[in-house]
Order: sequence, then C-alpha cells, then structure tokens
Amino acid sequence: MNTSTWPEPYLRAASRTLLFLMTAIVVALPLHAQTDPLPSWKEGPVKQTIIDFVQRVTAEGGRDFVPVEERIAVFDNDGTLWTEKPVPNEVYFVQSRVKEMVARDPSLRKRQPFRAVLERDEGYFQRHGAQAIAELVTATHANMTQEQFASEARRFLDTQRHPKLGRPYTATAYQPMLELLALLRANRFQTWICSGGTTDFMRVFSSQVYGIPPEQVIGSSIKREFRVVSGMRTIWRLPAMESVNDRETKPVGIDRHIGIRPLLVAGNVLSDGDIAMMEYSKSRPGASLQLLINHDDAEREFAYRERDNASLGAAGQYGFTVVSMKNDWKRIFR
Amino acid sequence: MNTSTWPEPYLRAASRTLLFLMTAIVVALPLHAQTDPLPSWKEGPVKQTIIDFVQRVTAEGGRDFVPVEERIAVFDNDGTLWTEKPVPNEVYFVQSRVKEMVARDPSLRKRQPFRAVLERDEGYFQRHGAQAIAELVTATHANMTQEQFASEARRFLDTQRHPKLGRPYTATAYQPMLELLALLRANRFQTWICSGGTTDFMRVFSSQVYGIPPEQVIGSSIKREFRVVSGMRTIWRLPAMESVNDRETKPVGIDRHIGIRPLLVAGNVLSDGDIAMMEYSKSRPGASLQLLINHDDAEREFAYRERDNASLGAAGQYGFTVVSMKNDWKRIFR
Repeated sequence: MNTSTWPEPYLRAASRTLLFLMTAIVVALPLHAQTDPLPSWKEGPVKQTIIDFVQRVTAEGGRDFVPVEERIAVFDNDGTLWTEKPVPNEVYFVQSRVKEMVARDPSLRKRQPFRAVLERDEGYFQRHGAQAIAELVTATHANMTQEQFASEARRFLDTQRHPKLGRPYTATAYQPMLELLALLRANRFQTWICSGGTTDFMRVFSSQVYGIPPEQVIGSSIKREFRVVSGMRTIWRLPAMESVNDRETKPVGIDRHIGIRPLLVAGNVLSDGDIAMMEYSKSRPGASLQLLINHDDAEREFAYRERDNASLGAAGQYGFTVVSMKNDWKRIFR
Repeated sequence: MNTSTWPEPYLRAASRTLLFLMTAIVVALPLHAQTDPLPSWKEGPVKQTIIDFVQRVTAEGGRDFVPVEERIAVFDNDGTLWTEKPVPNEVYFVQSRVKEMVARDPSLRKRQPFRAVLERDEGYFQRHGAQAIAELVTATHANMTQEQFASEARRFLDTQRHPKLGRPYTATAYQPMLELLALLRANRFQTWICSGGTTDFMRVFSSQVYGIPPEQVIGSSIKREFRVVSGMRTIWRLPAMESVNDRETKPVGIDRHIGIRPLLVAGNVLSDGDIAMMEYSKSRPGASLQLLINHDDAEREFAYRERDNASLGAAGQYGFTVVSMKNDWKRIFR
C-alpha cells in the first residue's frame, strides 16, 4: 500500500538523486537521437503538423501551452481508428447475432427486420432508415445483462474475421492511428472515443486494441435498468435506444462525458458525422487540431467519398488537417 | 515533447539505476515509519477496515489483488463528501439564481415555482414533488451556454457562504473524506462522484475541492444541444431534464459513464438514495467495500436519520461499513 507520504529525509534524498539522474539523462541525450514516434506516417506536412502541434501545446512556458487536464483528444472509431467498409464492423456482429437468433427460433426468419438482414435487403433499411437500424440493434443487443452482452461481443471478435480483409476485426485497426494514440498518451493527453457505434460493443475491445479504457468510450447506447437477476444485482439491457451518437449529438456526448472542449479531434470522410465535433474543438479558445481521415487508398484499404463532399468542404472552410491514407501513411494495418 | 521511446542504452542504464535506488529506499524504510494516511480518522474498526481493504486489493500476488483498471471508487456528494443540511448546497445556488432572475423580471415573483422559493413554501415542493424541483432546475439552470452556466456557478461559490456553518460552500467538504480520496488515488484508484446534484454544478468545484476531474463526475443533467451562439459553436442548455441520478438510476449512471462495477462505493444516510449503487458494488465478484456515512454528530455538523431506517437496514443486511461521524472522525471540516 502506498500511504502517500514517505518519511521526509528519505524523500528529500530520493528526490535529489532522481532529479540529478533525470537531468543527466536529458543533457546527455542529443535531440536528433530521439526515435520517430510516428514511424508509419510518411514524412510531409501532415506528419509535421501533428508533431509540431504536440510540441507546441506541451512546451511549458510556450505561448500555446495547454495544462495536462485540458489535453483531451477525441477519436471517431469507424473509419477513423479502424475499417468501416463495406459496412461498419458492428453490423457484422448484428448479422451474426441475427443468424444465431434465427437458428434458435426459425419463425424470426419471416419477421422484419431479421428477414431483411438474412436476405441482404439493403432497400429495406434505406426505406425504413434509422428506425429499422434501431429496431435491429435493440433486438440483437437487448434483453440480457451487461456481462452477457460483453461475453457475446467478445466471442464474436475472438472467432470471426472481416469478410473482405480476411483478418480478425480487431486487426482492422489502423497502425498509424495506434502510433498517434501512443504519442498523445506519452504527452499526457487523455484519449477518448466518440463514435456512432454502441458504447458497450466498443468497450469490449477498446482497451486491448487502442489502449482506451471503457470509461473513455462515448457511443450510442440502449436503455438499461438496475435489476436483480438470479440473485445478483446487475444492469439489464432494455429493447429501446437511449441515445444515438452522431453529427450534432457528438459534441453533446463529449460534453456529457467529459465536460471539456477537446484539444484534438479526429474524424473521417463518409457521412459528415464528425464535422460537428471537429467544429466544436476548433471553437476552443487557443490552440487545437482537427484531423480528417480521407479514404483514398483503394489498393490497401477502400476508396470512398461523400456525395456532397461536406467533410472535405468543412475541412477547407475551418482549417481541418486532411490526412490522405494513400499519401500520408506508409502502412495501413499492423 | 515526449516521443515515448528513449534511445535503448540510456533507457537501460537509467532503469538499472532507478531500480537500485528504489530498492535501497524500500529496504531502508522501516514499516512503522510510514505516515498515517488518514490522520482525521480515529483509530478503531472502521479506519482499520479501510486501511486493510486498500492493502488487500493492492497487494500484488495476494488473493484479493485487483488490477489498476478495476480500482474504481465512487462517492455520493451531498452528505457524503460535503454537507447537505439543512438543504443540499445546490439548492442555495438555485435560490440565489431565482433572486437574481426576479430582480431582473419582477413579474416572476408571482409565478410558481419562483414564488414558492421566495416565500420558502416547502409545502409547494412537497405537493408537487420531483416535477416542481425539475421545473425549478430547468428554469434556473437553462437557456445559456455551458460556459455561462459555469461562470454563474463559480461566482456563487466564490462569493456566498453556507448560512448555518458560516463558511464558503466549498469549505463544507469533510476533511476525513478528502484524506480517503487522496489515499485511494495514491493507490491508483480512480475516484468518481455519482450524485443527485447536477453534473455541471459539481464539475465547477470537483477538481479544486476533491481532486476529481470533470470527466469523473456523474450527476443529474439537463438536455443540451449543439448550437452556434455569437458565431461560436457551443453547447446550449435546454429547459428540460435529461436524467435524474438517484436510487436505481445511480448504478445505471455508473454503467453509462464507467462500465465497470465499482470496487468501493461511499454513500450516506438520508433518503436511501445510495443503497442501489452500494448493492451494485457489493455484487462485484471478489473483494469490495461499501461505506455508509451516518450523520450522528449534532454538535459538529448535523444529526439526522431516515424515517424508515432503510440505509442502516441495508448496511446490516448486506454488510456495508457504517461510518459514525461522531465516533470515527476526529474532525469534520478542514
């Protein structure tokens, strides 16, 4: 146990020795001998922007210095930290749950929205929109305890593979972004996820894959209640959405969970879902950085763009930094 | 900037020296020379229970060892970390806001629920219950940006004093609990608040008073939206409640914000509001500790009990540790 206070004389002696030691190391260390913190990023203006930014906001006494408690970095997940094509990875989890549910109760095969999933009827979801997605999420994610849900999600991630990339879903994370997360944490940033996926699905792998603990995951969520199940007090998942975390509700989610305007936000081009939280960060008084991942690498991942170009348009208008997967990243996956 | 990787030879030399130094300190340090981490707690079974618990769950290799990421400690605020009598401190903030609003618009004086506040008509609130409280909170806490609200709350806390205790509200925090928070953090616990007060009011002082950062405050909250105000993207406070954090919704709030069953929960006797989250912690597999603060010290603070004795009853039934302010605390305030 750390009793928080060491006896004074020991403490003073230890401090002096430590200080001397650290000073000696720093003085002996030629600046250019530092290892590249972003080895999977190609040299160029984007990599330099990131490194300069981290240097500026952590330089004590500097004009742009930001105290540790305000070093909040927020990342979208699908398409920003890992692949979201041809559909977000959580959709495969939903499909897998539907197949298991139908195997147990074949009458579901004829009922919507299960039928649309089994028949890959995208038209159904286009016609019924968010309502159909919410029905599907609540049908596959609810009526169980949090522990049961986590174990279902873990089993899916441990046993199944991304159909196009042929690798475990957790291995569809982008190596350059993992390096960026590590660089930020080494400079005492808190790293958070703020994504449209469900919080509880992301919490199952965020720590292992990204080093982001469950309490720093903000996502969509279903309603829950406190309930006694088999004599154990637990959180029971109800078949209804509590919140959908997308577009204008992302900054609200950040406020709900963090309460501090982010210093850095990373999002991606696909559905203009990250613009609001990037603008929210940009309105921070003082320094801030917004990174917009552009999926322009058909060879190594997927190439896609928005119909209306909204995200790239916002990047031009507000000064977000656009990251080209093709030109700025040496490698995509680990 | 910390580039996260030091050159290998320096690192190895530094590690060896550090290890030697730390070993020397630990070996040289007689166990009984450690300073008391809880000086405001009287010696006795309660203090010993706390110290033993922290020792057990942090002893590597021990049967009850709990990894750092699961060391979650959750504290109720009103009546657990600071005074809640004769009414919770935030109620004085609401009163102060009502007075200012009426000064600007005297017609409000005749309208409920403002009139009931000005006339100290407790009957009105008893008759209209949670609905009236919610109306009051939304009327006094909404229709402004988060920044404006924080500045209002800060001004109140900086300028006004608790009417019975005659000290600033932030000085109504309990010294023994501040020591407990520090002891837990020194042993790498995360310390959280989970309280019926509003998140945004508590966030204004939680860091300064308790060392608990804004992102670790769970409370009741009003609805918000992302809005452009005077050209700035901001979070606008809407006049409606989003969630009330009390009783059975406290474990839900913990799940929403943390996603990990707490290892330690502290609550207090007044309105049975903390029983559910204490039970939730108690159902954790393995070690856990629940502290129930009993307000039995009329001389130094306030003495009060529950009509139905529900919290003390639950303590007996589930094995929560009851803390007597009169017998277990040497001092109450700083």
